[in-house]
Amino acid sequence: MSTPTLPEFAGRHIGPREDDLAGMLKVVGRSSLDDLVDTAVPGGIRFEGELDVTAAGSEAAVLTQLRQVAARNRVLTSLIGLGYYGTRTPAVIQRNVLENPAWYTAYTPYQPEISQGRLEALLNFQTVVGDLTGLATAGASLLDEGTAAAEAMTLMRRSSKVAADAVLLVDEGVFPQTLAVLRTRAVPLGIPVVVADLAGVDSADALRAAAGAEVFGVLVQYPAVDGRLGDHRALAEAAHEVGALVTAAADLLALTLATPPGEWGADVAVGTTQRFGVPMGFGGPHAGYMSVRAGLERTLPGRLVGVSVDADGAPAYRLALQTREQHIRREKATSNICTAQVLLAVMASMYAVYHGPDGLRQIALRVHSHARALAGALRAGGVEVADGPSFDTLALRVPGEADGVVAAALAEGVNLWRRDDDTVLLSLDETTDLVVLGKVCRALGVTAPERVEVAAPEWPEALTRTSEYLTHPVFSAHRSETAMLRYLRRLSDRDFALDRGMIPLGSCTMKLNATTEMAAVTWPEFANLHPFAPLEQTKGIRGLVDELSGWLCEITGYDAVSLQPNAGSQGELAGLLAIAAYHRSRGDEGRRVCLIPSSAHGTNAASAVMAGMRVVVVKTDPVTGNVDMDDLSAKVEEHRETLAAIMVTYPSTHGVFEDTITDLCALVHDAGGQVYVDGANLNALVGVARPGKFGADVSHLNLHKTFCIPHGGGGPGVGPVGVREHLAPFLPNHPLDPEAGPGSGVGPVSAAPYGSASILPISWAYVRLMGGAGLRRATEVAVLNANYVAARLRDHYPVLYSGHDGLVAHECILDLRGITKETGVSVDDVAKRLIDYGFHAPTMSFPVAGTLMVEPTESEDLGELDRFCDAMIAIRGEIDEVGSGAVAAADSVLRHAPHTAVSLAAEWDHPYDRRAAAFPEGVDPAAKYWPPVRRIDGAYGDRHLVCSCPSPEAFED
Amino acid sequence: MSTPTLPEFAGRHIGPREDDLAGMLKVVGRSSLDDLVDTAVPGGIRFEGELDVTAAGSEAAVLTQLRQVAARNRVLTSLIGLGYYGTRTPAVIQRNVLENPAWYTAYTPYQPEISQGRLEALLNFQTVVGDLTGLATAGASLLDEGTAAAEAMTLMRRSSKVAADAVLLVDEGVFPQTLAVLRTRAVPLGIPVVVADLAGVDSADALRAAAGAEVFGVLVQYPAVDGRLGDHRALAEAAHEVGALVTAAADLLALTLATPPGEWGADVAVGTTQRFGVPMGFGGPHAGYMSVRAGLERTLPGRLVGVSVDADGAPAYRLALQTREQHIRREKATSNICTAQVLLAVMASMYAVYHGPDGLRQIALRVHSHARALAGALRAGGVEVADGPSFDTLALRVPGEADGVVAAALAEGVNLWRRDDDTVLLSLDETTDLVVLGKVCRALGVTAPERVEVAAPEWPEALTRTSEYLTHPVFSAHRSETAMLRYLRRLSDRDFALDRGMIPLGSCTMKLNATTEMAAVTWPEFANLHPFAPLEQTKGIRGLVDELSGWLCEITGYDAVSLQPNAGSQGELAGLLAIAAYHRSRGDEGRRVCLIPSSAHGTNAASAVMAGMRVVVVKTDPVTGNVDMDDLSAKVEEHRETLAAIMVTYPSTHGVFEDTITDLCALVHDAGGQVYVDGANLNALVGVARPGKFGADVSHLNLHKTFCIPHGGGGPGVGPVGVREHLAPFLPNHPLDPEAGPGSGVGPVSAAPYGSASILPISWAYVRLMGGAGLRRATEVAVLNANYVAARLRDHYPVLYSGHDGLVAHECILDLRGITKETGVSVDDVAKRLIDYGFHAPTMSFPVAGTLMVEPTESEDLGELDRFCDAMIAIRGEIDEVGSGAVAAADSVLRHAPHTAVSLAAEWDHPYDRRAAAFPEGVDPAAKYWPPVRRIDGAYGDRHLVCSCPSPEAFED
Repeated sequence: MSTPTLPEFAGRHIGPREDDLAGMLKVVGRSSLDDLVDTAVPGGIRFEGELDVTAAGSEAAVLTQLRQVAARNRVLTSLIGLGYYGTRTPAVIQRNVLENPAWYTAYTPYQPEISQGRLEALLNFQTVVGDLTGLATAGASLLDEGTAAAEAMTLMRRSSKVAADAVLLVDEGVFPQTLAVLRTRAVPLGIPVVVADLAGVDSADALRAAAGAEVFGVLVQYPAVDGRLGDHRALAEAAHEVGALVTAAADLLALTLATPPGEWGADVAVGTTQRFGVPMGFGGPHAGYMSVRAGLERTLPGRLVGVSVDADGAPAYRLALQTREQHIRREKATSNICTAQVLLAVMASMYAVYHGPDGLRQIALRVHSHARALAGALRAGGVEVADGPSFDTLALRVPGEADGVVAAALAEGVNLWRRDDDTVLLSLDETTDLVVLGKVCRALGVTAPERVEVAAPEWPEALTRTSEYLTHPVFSAHRSETAMLRYLRRLSDRDFALDRGMIPLGSCTMKLNATTEMAAVTWPEFANLHPFAPLEQTKGIRGLVDELSGWLCEITGYDAVSLQPNAGSQGELAGLLAIAAYHRSRGDEGRRVCLIPSSAHGTNAASAVMAGMRVVVVKTDPVTGNVDMDDLSAKVEEHRETLAAIMVTYPSTHGVFEDTITDLCALVHDAGGQVYVDGANLNALVGVARPGKFGADVSHLNLHKTFCIPHGGGGPGVGPVGVREHLAPFLPNHPLDPEAGPGSGVGPVSAAPYGSASILPISWAYVRLMGGAGLRRATEVAVLNANYVAARLRDHYPVLYSGHDGLVAHECILDLRGITKETGVSVDDVAKRLIDYGFHAPTMSFPVAGTLMVEPTESEDLGELDRFCDAMIAIRGEIDEVGSGAVAAADSVLRHAPHTAVSLAAEWDHPYDRRAAAFPEGVDPAAKYWPPVRRIDGAYGDRHLVCSCPSPEAFED
Repeated sequence: MSTPTLPEFAGRHIGPREDDLAGMLKVVGRSSLDDLVDTAVPGGIRFEGELDVTAAGSEAAVLTQLRQVAARNRVLTSLIGLGYYGTRTPAVIQRNVLENPAWYTAYTPYQPEISQGRLEALLNFQTVVGDLTGLATAGASLLDEGTAAAEAMTLMRRSSKVAADAVLLVDEGVFPQTLAVLRTRAVPLGIPVVVADLAGVDSADALRAAAGAEVFGVLVQYPAVDGRLGDHRALAEAAHEVGALVTAAADLLALTLATPPGEWGADVAVGTTQRFGVPMGFGGPHAGYMSVRAGLERTLPGRLVGVSVDADGAPAYRLALQTREQHIRREKATSNICTAQVLLAVMASMYAVYHGPDGLRQIALRVHSHARALAGALRAGGVEVADGPSFDTLALRVPGEADGVVAAALAEGVNLWRRDDDTVLLSLDETTDLVVLGKVCRALGVTAPERVEVAAPEWPEALTRTSEYLTHPVFSAHRSETAMLRYLRRLSDRDFALDRGMIPLGSCTMKLNATTEMAAVTWPEFANLHPFAPLEQTKGIRGLVDELSGWLCEITGYDAVSLQPNAGSQGELAGLLAIAAYHRSRGDEGRRVCLIPSSAHGTNAASAVMAGMRVVVVKTDPVTGNVDMDDLSAKVEEHRETLAAIMVTYPSTHGVFEDTITDLCALVHDAGGQVYVDGANLNALVGVARPGKFGADVSHLNLHKTFCIPHGGGGPGVGPVGVREHLAPFLPNHPLDPEAGPGSGVGPVSAAPYGSASILPISWAYVRLMGGAGLRRATEVAVLNANYVAARLRDHYPVLYSGHDGLVAHECILDLRGITKETGVSVDDVAKRLIDYGFHAPTMSFPVAGTLMVEPTESEDLGELDRFCDAMIAIRGEIDEVGSGAVAAADSVLRHAPHTAVSLAAEWDHPYDRRAAAFPEGVDPAAKYWPPVRRIDGAYGDRHLVCSCPSPEAFED
């Protein structure tokens, strides 16, 4: 294949210079990039054409085009509500978090020593949620309110001892999209969902009557979709009496004024933190939340930040209770959630830090007072507004006139929500002012209020919050912009992100998140769209979604793509649901077995269970690391009648292009099963091979891996699912958006029709900037970089698996098991020692315990690759000192890593000197990254679980 | 005065919380803010009203309004040229420099140990300029091309031995605004300027003939305004023969292809680096440049970065040859320049780092090739295009049709430049593409080229560059965006800016630069305007200029303001020129004496000399620090007939509200002199007293001090001048912009009509956000903060001067002279030790040697003030250990400060331990700022002058 002309941007995105390639190829032993790829990738699956995506544009041209796309959106005032509200992102937070690579290019805080900044921010988030909901423990964010409610459903199911056929009882005041997500998730698990009006339910009998069955869980919206703020004490008592748990889907801003769920008996609270300074963004991303009462903390799905201690006994943050998670528990996990919405959770928590408890209360009072003034004006003008306590939402009873009212408001530039023919809903927010009230009043032909007096709600005592919240000093210490700016800087300085150096995480593809790609995220035309705004107002973003979907089809070889899943895990679930629905559509209900190789991502198994399948594990060949084809044949044979699917990752989680992929697909298809190729490693395939054409039926991708959406410190993500034509009718859809999927679809897997829509311009821009040739080149260099690292390190650390001619794919596994056995030096020791050298550790002990998996991506240049290899080789020298008996492992520089600056200033009783500890060979003192804590004791933190901000005294010496 | 309601933003801008004020006032011994101000500020000058500026708006409202202002600008394609060109700011530079507080909130690098990042960037800048111009030494930037040319004029005058009545000979191809600035500056100095066509001048005789006199200097534009690229070898030789020097005003992009001035005999090169990625911004700010041949380096005006060594012998950067500068040499200085355009110089240098020599050459080739293609198309269509070598500019000969051609182009959305009735100029740039060529061709009715072949210029050998440039590794090491991002992060991490902590610099007012204020700077509607674009296209920014001018008049009490001066020094000059012109207009030409107190800023004296005045120093009372009124009376009497003006700072440079200001004004006025009040300390006056109403005739302000424009690490600045009505006719104006000043004005003091226009939205937004009440409150709290610091430190360090009831104004001087005498511990020691504590030092030894001047500003909150006071008190404890004889000063922790992390890891032979060195009481280890170098030996660097990037080997151990 001849070398096509590469766009200028490819030279910015790809690390190694053209001049470096020959030397690198020589180290790898190949003559050219084509030779490399032709050797590494099995001929049978190679794509020999050119991707027909889009001609590459310059950065300036792409930005110009994006501005044109943006201009096709119309940003009106949306009072639609339903969980999405206007909000003001404080400028200091927008610039210094959302637009700051120190925050947005960070990885998930699995290496807590180099993630203390965002862990503190997440602990603040947990404190905000815990305080406001009045519940003991909050997690570090979930994907959105809809999926959080679904997680609450399964949490309640697990925690309730009520009979297996008991139902989830949902109040009719729950947001429609939440209910739809619940149903999508309940169906495969066989959980019955009953919707009823629970307003008057105040006894066990009434509860059972409303459900028509036993009840394991109750879900209410607080305040309800139509604005009613209900007193749910009796309901909660009744639920507890029958052995059910209660979840409140609660609005955090309302909770600054209203009695929190934890005080009226809820066991669980879920919701979104969107209105805490995170733009609506046409539906996402935002941080969903969940908090639980004491006793339920170990059942929480997703990430949980806790406080522990480091090797010096100093307090330190880390992820707690990891053993709950899917990557450990696999099919026994409580959820397939493996990401959070860290960047958005950080923003929301900082919004609370910036405003403090008094500021939040003031905002809530303003919103409420505007709502009350509007209600008064409407009633005075003869409009019927629903009675009773409410916070920010009014239900207008306009018999037969709903369409007309909505149209009249639209003419004024305001979106209202048509609930039914006779009811219009409107929700006010932080941005509402007299001008907006004036427009609404004009639309309804009433006299607008001339002023709004900000006053406390006139609610019954039972509904009025009296308890304090956000009393921790962090919520009052950073209230000037200067103080806020410095707090943000200080936290981000503690963390190691891509703006400091390589993050060579196998399977996580930490590549460049180019500034031009990020630019549009904060443009108001994308940021300020309500997800349920009329179609005519969202033509720009919808066009972008269509275009990106088309490109992803071309790149993957599939026939249809859904961009709705807002994380890879949700993409997996959507793909498996499509398979299940396909079998069902053919009367093949019995096909429920999902084959999963033992080396698979833990998420695969957890997702399969969530999709109602039974996991059967297929062996992996211990020598080659490949799927054991004999075992596969046997398993296929054994489950021939019930085989639903196989889930494999390609190239494999071992970082190898397996030759047998074509046979594997044929074998499974032949038995009536579907082939699910996990797209986690798509970065090794783009432009080189297309799953949809080499035998797979469905894949999910990770736009936050291969397509440049930044990891944000552990989210947001986008996990689109691509399918072949026969599965297309079973993709996700959405009850409130007819364009968001097929009518025959499986329902929504995310709360918003297009999931994390506002970050899709990032991936769109990436494809536009690279074009087909640039994308292929990126893949080639990603494979080259991985092989270069493997070649340089092979003599120092065994490379565990490889394919043709010893080549790996886009990542390589360094096998430390022998070294550990001989010397006692563990992968942990090497990972922490890399911090001293100024690196983020590779992926630890996945997919093989005792190994490190390195994925440099195409964006790392030769200088950085060499710096990493040199560090690894130097560390091998340090290991050898232990191996030779010169130093005991327990005394070694490895075991005591990482070293903080403070530790240098303290007494020193190590057999190595300070310089060796902190400034080993190759570390530029002027660019030294200092971890703020020493090695953290994870087990201690799990034993002494603390998941909200500790008192400042805890940090004193 | 009753407490007005403060806008929310005031609570973000001002540090101390409302709750903190009472306690702080108690420490200061005042009962209220009103009491504080009433006591501190003399009653006779107090302003008792409310500023009638603008009602304060919320951040959201102000941004909305700014967007409306922006929408009134029309951004067309400007091919006007004349030193301003379209350019593309690389997104990674825009986001991570221009939009990053770590860069833009930094101060001038006077404390080099905590400024190594921007000093490296400036050294890169000097290397770019030196390499491209082919001259030995370049400075760290000047204000703009026009003032750089004026500086070159005086440099040549000083360096030439030719008779005092010799002339500056200027080629007629010089930009018109440059010529105008030259004339403004030449007149008061009595330098004759002769303009002639120097194209054929190739001998000493011809040169003299062209000048009609002896010649001390020659200035040519290279390429000339009409695009001609001339061979100036013979001219340079002739000039040197008659003892004159030669300056080339050269285009850096052209110099990637054309023989550099240093190779054809120029002694000096000046110009702008705007087209290196810095938006046109309606004229500024951009970094001007100057470079000189070997032997002239000590005559360079402005900042010069050099390489020296630190206490460990490691290479380190610092400002070189400071003794040349105005703050040392006062009226004997070579220039009044006391700032650079650091932020813009950093951007331009990073543009070169990002593109590298090959990338810059490619850009230049594209520009040139487009120009050539356009010329071909125009000629083919019968348009007469000037012949001869050219780079990017075409001169179209269209007899009598110039207006019509310009209008036709305008109809196509393109601005061309009407040189005269018969000539139209157009200059292409980096953004020019076939679409633009098509528009121009349509406007001229010719067939557009269908493609452009990028090829080398077909110039004579003498004009064609053959020498290499930018061969230093820094220009090839950071070419991927990932590498660039990390380089920018690494450099910014070395520096201490406002995003880390307080910068308590007396007289420099380092207050909050709020994000909302900064937002509009990068909007295309402000960034992409050519300064000479038609009036109708620039209505938004012009309206903003008018509004801001009005507010500044109201705040200062003056009748007219010019926003043209792009630095305080230029504002001073403009003010003094107005005074001189006023006297001249009354036939009072003899009034040339300018009285200046001995405590004045050095700039004052330097500016007075530049304005053609003679400086007479007035004594300061050694006890009170006030102007010695007896000496003043005597001096006024002595110079009664020749008295032009007095220049005083109010409150004084000693940080005190002098009672005598009213008398002083009367005394000078009575003698026929004018009163110039230096506005450096206006932050103590806004809303409290108005110079224009208490007796002053003219002031310059510093929008980068009082009005929130960030210091940018040492520029940009804006130094508007305000005057009373009788001086208004003598404000600056501009030959190319009839709206930019009075027809009777003194000519331009900056190249662009509105100077640094694109950053004016910052100050505009500040006033809009604060309103009159907020502005006054800021002043009150600034005075409170200074007095709080003085009160807390008074027992530990004598506070040198104070006014009523022991109150200072907005800053206080800590007198270390006694301490130094007793202990040997110097202000330097304390300043460097503060770095270990995590602070930027206060102003050192100004206005009194051996003292530190502290100005906290209103933006620092109580926590930060206390942290600073605690650090100063702890340092006093360390001093006492020296004083008690326990430790020798030479061995003390003070003398060895600052301590680097590397020094902790090395052998330790100090009498104090490592913890005391790096983590003294009050330092949060997790927020520790590490200086990258130890104390720098400034003298060494001046003895071994190195002002371009040193080879990488220099940094090896």
